[in-house]
Amino acid sequence: MEKVQPRTLSGFMELLPNEQILFNQMKETIQKTYERYGFLPLDTPIIESAEVLLAKAGGETEKQMYRFKKGDADLALRFDLTVPLAKYVAKNYGNLSFPFRRYQIGKVYRGERAQKGRYREFYQCDIDVIGDGELDLINDAEMPSIIYSLIKELGFDDFTIKINNRKILNGLFEGLNQKENSTEILRVIDKLEKIGKDAVVEELKKLDVKEEQIKAIMDFIEIEGTSNEKLEKLENLGINNETYQKGVEELKSVINNVRLFGVPEENFQVDLTIARGLDYYTGTVYETFLNNYRELGSVCSGGRYENLAEYYTDKKLPGVGISIGLTRLFYKLNELNIIKAEKKSISDILIIPITEDLKEPIKLATELRKIGINTEVYLNNKKLKAKFKYADKLEIPYVIVIGDDEIKAKKIKLKNMKSGEEKEVNMDAEEIVKYIQ
Amino acid sequence: MEKVQPRTLSGFMELLPNEQILFNQMKETIQKTYERYGFLPLDTPIIESAEVLLAKAGGETEKQMYRFKKGDADLALRFDLTVPLAKYVAKNYGNLSFPFRRYQIGKVYRGERAQKGRYREFYQCDIDVIGDGELDLINDAEMPSIIYSLIKELGFDDFTIKINNRKILNGLFEGLNQKENSTEILRVIDKLEKIGKDAVVEELKKLDVKEEQIKAIMDFIEIEGTSNEKLEKLENLGINNETYQKGVEELKSVINNVRLFGVPEENFQVDLTIARGLDYYTGTVYETFLNNYRELGSVCSGGRYENLAEYYTDKKLPGVGISIGLTRLFYKLNELNIIKAEKKSISDILIIPITEDLKEPIKLATELRKIGINTEVYLNNKKLKAKFKYADKLEIPYVIVIGDDEIKAKKIKLKNMKSGEEKEVNMDAEEIVKYIQ
Repeated sequence: MEKVQPRTLSGFMELLPNEQILFNQMKETIQKTYERYGFLPLDTPIIESAEVLLAKAGGETEKQMYRFKKGDADLALRFDLTVPLAKYVAKNYGNLSFPFRRYQIGKVYRGERAQKGRYREFYQCDIDVIGDGELDLINDAEMPSIIYSLIKELGFDDFTIKINNRKILNGLFEGLNQKENSTEILRVIDKLEKIGKDAVVEELKKLDVKEEQIKAIMDFIEIEGTSNEKLEKLENLGINNETYQKGVEELKSVINNVRLFGVPEENFQVDLTIARGLDYYTGTVYETFLNNYRELGSVCSGGRYENLAEYYTDKKLPGVGISIGLTRLFYKLNELNIIKAEKKSISDILIIPITEDLKEPIKLATELRKIGINTEVYLNNKKLKAKFKYADKLEIPYVIVIGDDEIKAKKIKLKNMKSGEEKEVNMDAEEIVKYIQ
Repeated sequence: MEKVQPRTLSGFMELLPNEQILFNQMKETIQKTYERYGFLPLDTPIIESAEVLLAKAGGETEKQMYRFKKGDADLALRFDLTVPLAKYVAKNYGNLSFPFRRYQIGKVYRGERAQKGRYREFYQCDIDVIGDGELDLINDAEMPSIIYSLIKELGFDDFTIKINNRKILNGLFEGLNQKENSTEILRVIDKLEKIGKDAVVEELKKLDVKEEQIKAIMDFIEIEGTSNEKLEKLENLGINNETYQKGVEELKSVINNVRLFGVPEENFQVDLTIARGLDYYTGTVYETFLNNYRELGSVCSGGRYENLAEYYTDKKLPGVGISIGLTRLFYKLNELNIIKAEKKSISDILIIPITEDLKEPIKLATELRKIGINTEVYLNNKKLKAKFKYADKLEIPYVIVIGDDEIKAKKIKLKNMKSGEEKEVNMDAEEIVKYIQ
């Protein structure tokens, strides 16, 4: 028979089992943390009507979209989880309780140019709080506390959540009569971390921003000091613009409340250069950096938006949310070999029967499973050495060999595969568990 | 602004949060059970090269496939999890340990005609054990024990796992010189449950099966009695065909070992009418019925196949597996209102602050979360009544109101939202937990 070459498309992550186990642990940690804070689960279709997705998409996103026909239907794959959320809230408005707190963890699709570490199919892990008409600013302060818990749970201690408010920059631009240009200027400033100060100045020049104004902008984004010092400097900068003043006031309130939510001083800071490229953010914005791995870029970002679903409904639905691009994050952490995971295998115990009589081995496995121990019985007829090699390759931590002698004596040897140590134990699930925890 | 109508495509399930919570619990139960038996996780892309998927697809499946171009690439969405598994094992053969036990829970896509209870996007939850060259028959007996655990974990006691072996029927057809016709005949027999005996006879006539042969087939599939009686009758039917005899022998061995694996007699039976329409099954086949809800059809099916990945590799890879179509199953169970779920809400406790000073409410929430209690703090400025209504609608089981009095006295009232009962407790996470478990 002519064979088809078994291949996976480039830009699509497909892991070997040991890596998949690590990936799933990260995913479950994120899910569990989101649920700890009472966010409700949501699972929207991957395929939507193209018209629905295009209500919001545009530019690059539209070009990258997977769009196709099935019969007469004009369909597309979701490119983020925010547009489906907007659709969902508009559609189900009457059936939801507000503030609507939801999490969604799912795959999204962007037909980007393939390159190392860039994915066309990737997991996003989002939470958002959506208000009906209004949403108290205190919600903007809860987000960093969730980021804090999350990154700690993922096993990292040395990280910084950077917080800013878009109104401050927007107000500044209004004051400089650069309002029309502000989205473009924000996009450029957003690249400061990546391309450096000189390149930012060059790009601003290209936008026809006057040299004097560039100086003002650069002076502003270079305000230094602790979060409190920055807030003080912002207040004393003498900028007489309402939006600016509102922004400073909001940022001050958020920062104070982030402390109230228990985020340690060393894990957050005001950073006036954080703008988030996306133009739908209108207030607080966040980015999160692992301080020893700055090359990863922001691992968790988000912000406040004035109106989630204006393309679908007249209802005003302000919200605040954060997102983790898990696929890329996993790829990077895995490459650096710094994934903190508790379990390296699914099975806790492999039972190897070396007898025709499988009754006792299976009975023991059933009992172990009942008390929550993942247990596999090796069911194929191989040499003992091959069976141990199997346990080794799968990194199963404990092995129990059961032959006729063990069945007669009702005692087994529990072998710790890491230390090589063997322990004689009664053939009893409860007793065995004591030695593996 | 012109609004786009927020809508979800027909044939795509999108649940409200309270239903999503139930759905996720079923999904997690399935995942946990699969892991209990040591199956490794796998997550393959939803998009594959069309050529890779089409190696196996054909007929209806091909017509139903979502296939499209992106640039030059001819792409398609997976229509099951078996073809991606075959590709994966062929591709990663050298890096896997055999027998390769994997589970996969993911969405698959079929552009079927939309109708009630039929989905175009639906979850499949599969396990398979793949052998390298060969796979011991004992694995065929483990599958029903996993189905048994699974259906019990999903909260059902009265169900029957029906077991058959394709070789028996195939051998019978060989004996009747109907070998060429056997796939077609099997497809017809498979519909017995659905369309009844007379319609099956009619359809067999249409296939040009002689009346005498139809009689033999019908006599055969109407063999009655207990599993042991059926096995005995099969052995004594005097059919002198090697395939037939092999099938009877395998079925006998599997049934005996299913007992060994601890499946109670009332939860399984030999059923000679079970054939599974798909032509890649070559030995043992399974279907599972909830006895009080026969209208659901089989809720968990599968079987043994001789060669998983012949389209991609020369390696012989026999396997055995089962699959649950979760989306349809959930839809049906939900419609019947018989989903057994432990939790109806994500949050265990809602803390409602009625003070400007959020420090203590947030501190308590943080402590509760640390000991594993999902806790939400109501952060929006609404009337107390609206806050309780929120807890009610989300079915959050406990509410704690914290005002200045509570903070001063370091005591709170824990309100059980179901019973209405209030309990005064110290403002201490450990103590509160005692009362909610």
